[in-house]
Amino acid sequence: MATPEIDRLIQQLSKLPGLGPRSSRRVALYLLKRRTAVLDPLVAALTQAAERVRPCATCGNLDAGDPCGLCRDERRDGALICVVEDVADLWALERSGSFRGRYHVLGGVLSALDGVGPEDLNIAGLVCRARDPAVAEVILATSATVDGQTTAHYITDRLADCAVTVSRLAHGVPMGGELEYLDDGTLAAALKARQAF
Amino acid sequence: MATPEIDRLIQQLSKLPGLGPRSSRRVALYLLKRRTAVLDPLVAALTQAAERVRPCATCGNLDAGDPCGLCRDERRDGALICVVEDVADLWALERSGSFRGRYHVLGGVLSALDGVGPEDLNIAGLVCRARDPAVAEVILATSATVDGQTTAHYITDRLADCAVTVSRLAHGVPMGGELEYLDDGTLAAALKARQAF
Repeated sequence: MATPEIDRLIQQLSKLPGLGPRSSRRVALYLLKRRTAVLDPLVAALTQAAERVRPCATCGNLDAGDPCGLCRDERRDGALICVVEDVADLWALERSGSFRGRYHVLGGVLSALDGVGPEDLNIAGLVCRARDPAVAEVILATSATVDGQTTAHYITDRLADCAVTVSRLAHGVPMGGELEYLDDGTLAAALKARQAF
Repeated sequence: MATPEIDRLIQQLSKLPGLGPRSSRRVALYLLKRRTAVLDPLVAALTQAAERVRPCATCGNLDAGDPCGLCRDERRDGALICVVEDVADLWALERSGSFRGRYHVLGGVLSALDGVGPEDLNIAGLVCRARDPAVAEVILATSATVDGQTTAHYITDRLADCAVTVSRLAHGVPMGGELEYLDDGTLAAALKARQAF
């Protein structure tokens, strides 16, 4: 259709999540028309991120430093480790501002269908960290999906001989959630875990 | 939230059309996790496009060459010039494969609200091209919006002393369109321009 340089750009853009052929063409044209304002700063940001950002050898978080900023932060509670599936989940918890311990990023969940086994996830690193006497509690913050819960159970088994408390996030009615529209599983969990008012 | 390099990348990504803060975070994480497969080829494609792609001095199309591939193509009919608002419209017409003449990209439409006047558009270049005796017809393919039609009327006035036929795209029922759901304006235009069957 267009010149090979533009076709190649559109093709690369369409590999990104959420961008189809039509939106990729729109983005490509937008970039080519705003070279100094948008394209150049984007290339600079991409290049810099590609050069500097690496997974943290301790927790698996993506950061320009290794150990990462969260692992280096002395004000965070080293006795608490929150286990998440992905860096996106870590970011979500950090945005909530409700956790001041350290993290451990698994890099996925166990999945028989997708062929993901324990050796594909960063579980050995977690067991190693949990053996540290300074660690008191491991909070499993995997998704409330079948695979997420399977992974949580597997990790609980692996941590059996470590001197740590293993906990998981509470299940229940989400804030702002209307009972009428909630699924049966959530309602049953919320009822079962009811608390004194 | 994350390291400055990642924050900057997310910020730059969120400037792109169709990407909000949430989808920008998703794209940034996707890129950082697929460095060689997606991030590096994307940077290469962006850099190459930024270096090579320029607007064609003749028609305004974006291309690695100047004059562009469409202006250089000897098999295209130089007697026909199709006037479009934007390169995206040119691409749409090229995808349809139904036009084998040359193009002229205005770079927008006249708009009193947005403060776009004739001097902001590539209209002088069109008048200059239309004076060429080889050009027989100028097809106005601006949008069927108020601004698009105003621009078409303005161009028609400007081309009054050129020896060219000025035509515009037909208005009517779009292919696959159901009459029940069409607006009054389209129906009135289709009825007015009815053709022998």
